[in-house]
Amino acid sequence: MGRDLTSLFDPGSVAVVGASDDPAKYGHAVASQALRAPDRRPVHLVNRRGGTVLGRTAATSLAEIGEPVELVVISVPGAGFEAAVDDALACGAKAIVGITAGFAEAGPAGLARQRAVAARVREAGAVLVGPNCLGIADNTTELYLASDRFAPGGVALLSQSGNLALELQLRGAPHGLGFSRFVSLGNQADVTLVDLVEDCARHEATSVIAVYAEDFGDGRAFARAAADAGKPVVLLTAGRGTASARSAQSHTGALTTSADVVAAACRDAGVELVRTPREMTIVLAALSGGVHTNGRRTAVFTDGGGHGAIAADAAEDAGLDVPELGASTQDRLRTVLWEQSAVGNPVDLAGMGEQRPLSYADTVAELLAAEEVDAVLMTGYFGGYAASDGGLGGGPAGGSVLAEGETRAAKEIVAHLALLSKPLVVQSMYPQSPSCRVLVEGGVPVFSATEDAARALAAMTGRPTAGSSPGAPSKPSAGPPAGPSGQLSSGSASGVLSGSSAESSAQPSSGSSLAASPRIAPLPAAQPPLRDPGYHGIRALLEEAGVPFPPAREITDEAGLLAAAGEFEGPYVLKALHVLHKSDAGGVALRLADRGALLAAYRDMHARLGAPSYSVEAMADLSDGVELIVGVNRDPRFGPVAMVGLGGVLTETLRDVAFSLAPVPAARAEELLRSLRTAALLAGVRGRPAVDVAAAAAVIERITAVAAAHPEMAELEVNPLLVRPEGALALDARAVLG
Amino acid sequence: MGRDLTSLFDPGSVAVVGASDDPAKYGHAVASQALRAPDRRPVHLVNRRGGTVLGRTAATSLAEIGEPVELVVISVPGAGFEAAVDDALACGAKAIVGITAGFAEAGPAGLARQRAVAARVREAGAVLVGPNCLGIADNTTELYLASDRFAPGGVALLSQSGNLALELQLRGAPHGLGFSRFVSLGNQADVTLVDLVEDCARHEATSVIAVYAEDFGDGRAFARAAADAGKPVVLLTAGRGTASARSAQSHTGALTTSADVVAAACRDAGVELVRTPREMTIVLAALSGGVHTNGRRTAVFTDGGGHGAIAADAAEDAGLDVPELGASTQDRLRTVLWEQSAVGNPVDLAGMGEQRPLSYADTVAELLAAEEVDAVLMTGYFGGYAASDGGLGGGPAGGSVLAEGETRAAKEIVAHLALLSKPLVVQSMYPQSPSCRVLVEGGVPVFSATEDAARALAAMTGRPTAGSSPGAPSKPSAGPPAGPSGQLSSGSASGVLSGSSAESSAQPSSGSSLAASPRIAPLPAAQPPLRDPGYHGIRALLEEAGVPFPPAREITDEAGLLAAAGEFEGPYVLKALHVLHKSDAGGVALRLADRGALLAAYRDMHARLGAPSYSVEAMADLSDGVELIVGVNRDPRFGPVAMVGLGGVLTETLRDVAFSLAPVPAARAEELLRSLRTAALLAGVRGRPAVDVAAAAAVIERITAVAAAHPEMAELEVNPLLVRPEGALALDARAVLG
Repeated sequence: MGRDLTSLFDPGSVAVVGASDDPAKYGHAVASQALRAPDRRPVHLVNRRGGTVLGRTAATSLAEIGEPVELVVISVPGAGFEAAVDDALACGAKAIVGITAGFAEAGPAGLARQRAVAARVREAGAVLVGPNCLGIADNTTELYLASDRFAPGGVALLSQSGNLALELQLRGAPHGLGFSRFVSLGNQADVTLVDLVEDCARHEATSVIAVYAEDFGDGRAFARAAADAGKPVVLLTAGRGTASARSAQSHTGALTTSADVVAAACRDAGVELVRTPREMTIVLAALSGGVHTNGRRTAVFTDGGGHGAIAADAAEDAGLDVPELGASTQDRLRTVLWEQSAVGNPVDLAGMGEQRPLSYADTVAELLAAEEVDAVLMTGYFGGYAASDGGLGGGPAGGSVLAEGETRAAKEIVAHLALLSKPLVVQSMYPQSPSCRVLVEGGVPVFSATEDAARALAAMTGRPTAGSSPGAPSKPSAGPPAGPSGQLSSGSASGVLSGSSAESSAQPSSGSSLAASPRIAPLPAAQPPLRDPGYHGIRALLEEAGVPFPPAREITDEAGLLAAAGEFEGPYVLKALHVLHKSDAGGVALRLADRGALLAAYRDMHARLGAPSYSVEAMADLSDGVELIVGVNRDPRFGPVAMVGLGGVLTETLRDVAFSLAPVPAARAEELLRSLRTAALLAGVRGRPAVDVAAAAAVIERITAVAAAHPEMAELEVNPLLVRPEGALALDARAVLG
Repeated sequence: MGRDLTSLFDPGSVAVVGASDDPAKYGHAVASQALRAPDRRPVHLVNRRGGTVLGRTAATSLAEIGEPVELVVISVPGAGFEAAVDDALACGAKAIVGITAGFAEAGPAGLARQRAVAARVREAGAVLVGPNCLGIADNTTELYLASDRFAPGGVALLSQSGNLALELQLRGAPHGLGFSRFVSLGNQADVTLVDLVEDCARHEATSVIAVYAEDFGDGRAFARAAADAGKPVVLLTAGRGTASARSAQSHTGALTTSADVVAAACRDAGVELVRTPREMTIVLAALSGGVHTNGRRTAVFTDGGGHGAIAADAAEDAGLDVPELGASTQDRLRTVLWEQSAVGNPVDLAGMGEQRPLSYADTVAELLAAEEVDAVLMTGYFGGYAASDGGLGGGPAGGSVLAEGETRAAKEIVAHLALLSKPLVVQSMYPQSPSCRVLVEGGVPVFSATEDAARALAAMTGRPTAGSSPGAPSKPSAGPPAGPSGQLSSGSASGVLSGSSAESSAQPSSGSSLAASPRIAPLPAAQPPLRDPGYHGIRALLEEAGVPFPPAREITDEAGLLAAAGEFEGPYVLKALHVLHKSDAGGVALRLADRGALLAAYRDMHARLGAPSYSVEAMADLSDGVELIVGVNRDPRFGPVAMVGLGGVLTETLRDVAFSLAPVPAARAEELLRSLRTAALLAGVRGRPAVDVAAAAAVIERITAVAAAHPEMAELEVNPLLVRPEGALALDARAVLG
């Protein structure tokens, strides 16, 4: 069930320690906000000098209040923080919000202080948000303990930056976006991002969870919490570039994670990953209506050819399809439109909107009803007839009749949508016009920029329509309950990888990353640590797990060499073992036709390298095969992360690889392989046969499961994994113990 | 000098034919606008029913006016257009603006009518804009002949879409963007996009030329006019996706061009290519100040870590560099900032801006002065202290003192910029605040979204600082004058490719495409048409132009084969000629060690294919070589377009190719090769030696010059072009006559 945060979000009483009349102090802002709902619960102001604060008598200490306080906000200078926490706990506090800064972000000494105070809080059965945070707010319980005022609504905002939270709030207003909760994450000494995602998942008034984070804490637990939230999670993060990673480290002391790993975790968990506050707002506006579909076939509808063409390009750039409409839809459109209108897709009124504004509504209705249309993007002038600044530029006159017609059209569009719940997004030159406001109030996202409309639609598509209806309270998906560690104690048999992903195809790079059924494969139970991290030890471990290798023997002298050669047919491969970068060092000899060639290669190699042992192997038939690379690295935040890619020189140059949290179920492994830029090679090009991707995927499942079950391995790599028209074969493997 | 459009943009008198009191008619809107400047020049309204229009007596015909009219706008029903044109010409009109629709866009009959009327206009020594256009406007001559009102400013807007022009106008307003001219291109029956770009290049009040076009007409002439304009040209176009191409064709009957070709022409010509009206506005706001640099080293400066990290990522996404600042700059920053401020890059006030607002100005000054900084991106809260909605969210109190300080800081920033003319772009949560308005009025582009600020900076960087200073009238670059065809009659010796591009490195995909010195290589004089388009004919033509091939002989029988084999050493290659897809058909045999092997291969091949002739060639040494593909296709709009890429299976899969207008000078060819995703292979990977890119580039120059000099060739392809550590060698070639 995750941690109980009731005392944090709906306390029976509140005290602000460090409340002040000095507007330059943060304790002033928090106290002012706290007093906005004085009738909801007792609000006590504490200032060590006493006197009055904001017109109320301030207590000089928590003890002076004379009654228990459930939640205490602490905004005092750094040195006094621990004492204030002790006072709060003594006063019966079950939740503490630590504004005071100077802890983990200030260096190791601060981190030690922070750990000690968090331990005291937990020991007392209380929870602590922060320190070094800007407060919290919950509009559903009238709890206002941050300097900013958030309009009420369905978005829970969990942010590691106060200014970005402010920007999101300012940006959301024109889209009618409001917030259920706001939590400034601070240093996450006790209450973590994961705890908060889990709690917001249970929070009925929250329809979307928006996160800005630089440090994910237990990243895998975050991914799991997001996947299990049962409602959309949107993540804004930095660190794709070198400069932002440098910055994040310097300003919060955060342990940042590679952008590849974060992106992989988001894809796996069905989290919408965004790059900027503007993109976050677009996606929140798109998702907060609760309308979505699993198709991407988009009808673009415009009243001017230029807007239609630009929007069609923007839609395709966002990963949507804009296919030509079927003949029967085109016929139906012709009956409601004019001769000069285009009905192929884009559908174009061709400037005839002012002849009959209701044709906008009729066209939207026909498009929503068309079986081959999953979603509609309307773009152009609509909104201009009713805009108060409609006269700007000498726009169409006879305004009031057209304005009325347009507003009626907007109402009809909303009515059509209620019947046919498919995504409709609008780009308008007049997004604030009365008719566009009718659309926004009816749940239609409206944007001024065509690329924003396309991005919004991408966030609303590619997901199943089944599930909660708009506005209905969401419940967590029916999964096994989370254990006390915050990680799932999976109900599925240990070692069996759960999760099927056949229905969710590899997504284009832009657009929605919400998988059809997000799943974070549970980590298998840890196996006994590997004793022999040498080549044959790794091979044995992997073979035991079902990873096929060619026959091989480890040998230390010529007699062993010849005995080994007798056990299987040539051609042979000879590898020097315990030699760093054995390929580059000349420690691998391929295509040794017979025992004579093998012996000659051994003598040459041993003279040069003097390796302690060698591996004699049967040479695999490489013709018609494709070489893959499969690796698993252990990330300090996200645990084992798998990488698959095409092997060889060009792929190193192209860095054509795909990532996923390990272990990787076979179906997901196949998706990863199909998502490679060079995936066409797997299907066979220029007359080459297709290779056995399913076999490769099954082997990837086994390799990544082994790595995940061995926490002592910092790295495990199979390179190459040869995939042939039938079957896959691991040709080399190595591990690094961490 | 291009066409004289004085009668179009600054006529001595104007008549609107089809002027109407009916607000539903376009002639009403145009007439209303035309009357805005009644004192500038006579404005006559013509309506065949006479009476009054807009309170003035309307003439029933142009003849009735009784005096010559220099410019006539024609907005009459389709059938009356030709008669109105004849009346206008009879009346002495030197310029006609054709609003009337129903011509080329309506089909072949309309196209024929349009051609006939354009010919009549040209014969009379007049010019025609349109038909099927929405009018023109020139704010510098008070000429208002379109329905929209455009705020005055430096942008000349040439648009094939009325609604997109309206959107650009609405979007520009908050950025203080205004327009010198507006021309609705219509069907370009006479006055073309090229004519207009040339005229706007000469137009002193125009500082930036903004184009929305779907049909480029003579695309190569457009590219040349843009390259020679001496001021920035920004192009918005559609057709990247399949749907928009479908749409553009259907709504204007336009001949669309592949997105690759348009992008290549823009790169070559230094045109900024944008995808949406929003991006167009950002780039116009960036370029209209005239500040630019050829570096991309960007200092990101923020008052909050989150904004800094997000902006640093956005900057890197836009192709900018965000390197760590030098030690001495960091030291100087430390003297003006606080202990908790970060000075590495991003530079972060860490929330201390409200302690001393002037620290914003001090920091910007230090960054602008730093030698290692080419440009500054400031991001975050700045603007909020002075914002009238600054109280929103309980922002910092003590507002008025902070507001004054912030506005003073803005003024100081503008003063610093005047001294150190480097690009500064600002992202602010409060872009409309008084202090941000000070910045905008001081020429600093201000945006609300961080990615917009980064895109703007990308448009201002990567170009030389030399040239016109901000606000100064631009003059065309000192190049040879354009000949009567509108194409340059280059002063350089015919056949010698001009243009050096060593200083302009290959740009990242996003960001500025303005080359350091844009150049469109002139088309060489056409050579006599190729008589033999067969393999040996093409080889001979290319060899004559200096393209090296291995020795080869065309043979038709065994005697010839053996004679040929005696002329050079093996191993040999045998190719069947005049066989379609000879490789796939088994018509190429490689690595034939000696004459015996050659003869056997010949017998086998001849038995299978019975080709009329064969080529016997010396087999090139492929080891350590990289195979390229070089092709030239003739585009109906842009003429010969070169494509270079890496050859082989993977490259076909990856479509890793780069385009440029042909002929391609060697320096540009080298840029194209270095811009390939697989370019690292050219430099040598995994111990392979680097190949001779300069030799390859020289050969590409020769191949593309041959193609450009042979207009009868629809396609010319050399594949593979083998590049070795020393030299390059063409191994096969083919041509398609068009």
